Amino acid sequence: MKEYVIGIDIGGTFTKTGFVDRDGNCFAEGVAPTDTFDNVDNFLEYLIKELDAAEKQLEGPYRIAGVGIGAPNGNFHNGTIENAPNLRWRGTIPFADMVNKHYNVPVRLTNDANAAALGEMVYGGARGMKDFIMITLGTGLGSGIVVNGDLVYGHDGFAGELGHVNVVENGRRCGCGNHGCLETYVSAPGIKRTVFELLAHDSSGSELADFSYNELDSEMIYNAAKNDDPIALKAFEITGQTLGKKLADSVVHTSPEAIFLFGGLSKSGDFIFKPTKKYLEESVMINFKNKVKILPSQLTDRNAAVMGASALIWKELDK
Amino acid sequence: MKEYVIGIDIGGTFTKTGFVDRDGNCFAEGVAPTDTFDNVDNFLEYLIKELDAAEKQLEGPYRIAGVGIGAPNGNFHNGTIENAPNLRWRGTIPFADMVNKHYNVPVRLTNDANAAALGEMVYGGARGMKDFIMITLGTGLGSGIVVNGDLVYGHDGFAGELGHVNVVENGRRCGCGNHGCLETYVSAPGIKRTVFELLAHDSSGSELADFSYNELDSEMIYNAAKNDDPIALKAFEITGQTLGKKLADSVVHTSPEAIFLFGGLSKSGDFIFKPTKKYLEESVMINFKNKVKILPSQLTDRNAAVMGASALIWKELDK
Repeated sequence: MKEYVIGIDIGGTFTKTGFVDRDGNCFAEGVAPTDTFDNVDNFLEYLIKELDAAEKQLEGPYRIAGVGIGAPNGNFHNGTIENAPNLRWRGTIPFADMVNKHYNVPVRLTNDANAAALGEMVYGGARGMKDFIMITLGTGLGSGIVVNGDLVYGHDGFAGELGHVNVVENGRRCGCGNHGCLETYVSAPGIKRTVFELLAHDSSGSELADFSYNELDSEMIYNAAKNDDPIALKAFEITGQTLGKKLADSVVHTSPEAIFLFGGLSKSGDFIFKPTKKYLEESVMINFKNKVKILPSQLTDRNAAVMGASALIWKELDK
Repeated sequence: MKEYVIGIDIGGTFTKTGFVDRDGNCFAEGVAPTDTFDNVDNFLEYLIKELDAAEKQLEGPYRIAGVGIGAPNGNFHNGTIENAPNLRWRGTIPFADMVNKHYNVPVRLTNDANAAALGEMVYGGARGMKDFIMITLGTGLGSGIVVNGDLVYGHDGFAGELGHVNVVENGRRCGCGNHGCLETYVSAPGIKRTVFELLAHDSSGSELADFSYNELDSEMIYNAAKNDDPIALKAFEITGQTLGKKLADSVVHTSPEAIFLFGGLSKSGDFIFKPTKKYLEESVMINFKNKVKILPSQLTDRNAAVMGASALIWKELDK
């Protein structure tokens, strides 16, 4: 009988869903609002209703093999969402247990970047790899670390927060409350902040000088770079340099075969990959030089998080 | 029947051996010179002869369950010693295979810090822990990272080189060829280098001003700290600060339950533990604050490396 895993990707604004088969095909996709619900029970009630309706689109005999969930601040060990800054639901929410009451199948939950790493391993460019790191570049910098074929969850279930290694002592203010974290330099807002620093230093000849902080986004910086805008080019160079140097530190921790870049900034191609690779190789300990591939994610963006979430279950079933 | 594992700890100068039982008791210990042999075959021939003689001390019926080896630049995946800077044998040496020709039992080899981590897990303070980091402080800074109950070897077998994360851009020259590596600040020579920087800045009132660079060692700095020597106290503060801040970055990678400090500097008690703990807590991402224990190793120094090497086998047999 055909098997599907329900993949759920909870974001701050929207929650995406889909029924994913073993080959990574995603059926009966859906989108539900997240932030209109100030109560998680009401949210789940709505979500289940939507999923029930979507399930009617599936054809032929099938069974639901499990539910995989990616969520901000998701704790794999407990199946909980814990104090996620960009969700309206406070405290520790036993979301996996709540879902399990509706679907009497295995329910697994982890954070969104870990889900993306699993997606890369099961459906993407990391197939066959045992040791790799997934870096997701968006509003923040998320990461999932895979060691010997398994995600690293760590003692408390929250391992793999590479966005919060320190780059600059008392550096840029970070959403986590700290200062100088990697994601304040390497992320969509991070490169914008770098552009503004560069403009302050010397704005001559840059089209980016025409935009307010609130107007500018990373796609505009990418387009400017394609036009040889000196500030945009410099901002990409600095962003890749910062990322490459810090990844050199990550490499000596877990010695990955590859590091995948996923999402937003990673679409900028050579503008981000070239300096990242260059400065990683320059900085990393000699034992690891010319060993680590820096690769673009092979997951298509549209369903990546939903597929990654579903991989939580497929990977477990394959054991 | 009683079982023993032969533990072998290869150091640059001496190689220590012992027959270790399941409870971590070490029998028929031996020491062989390492650096008098410029040929690894001659070294092994000598070592086997010594081990054969030592084995005669074992009483009652027994069997040898395996051979565990800790060696500089030891590669677990291949059982090789690869380009170890402080051994006279160049290139890639298939040491595990060579030993296996003499003992027809499982032979496993890894680097010395990984062996120490295994020792801590099987016989020491990490018993029952699934996620921890071992930091060995000696001439360098070695480390072994344990995730979900297993050592992290990584794609190439050399993972866990935390001594070579970058602390200062273009900082102190490191034995690895790079500059600014953690071990140039946090290790026995590292704290001495810090003392010399501090003396250059202001030597007033310090007994350490009486010693040449070649005379001074970390034990003298420890003794001076006990006498409230201002330079010695400051050097320990800076050393712990540097270690604590970089360990904060390691914590967000693998979220360990504890970090163990082993060897030389770790004997300095509060002088090193207090600032390490303080600055780790100050620096680490909020998710991990007050979660990670900083603990002294529970391995006794004398046999630690031999016991750790033997744990390579015991851990495998326990699976």
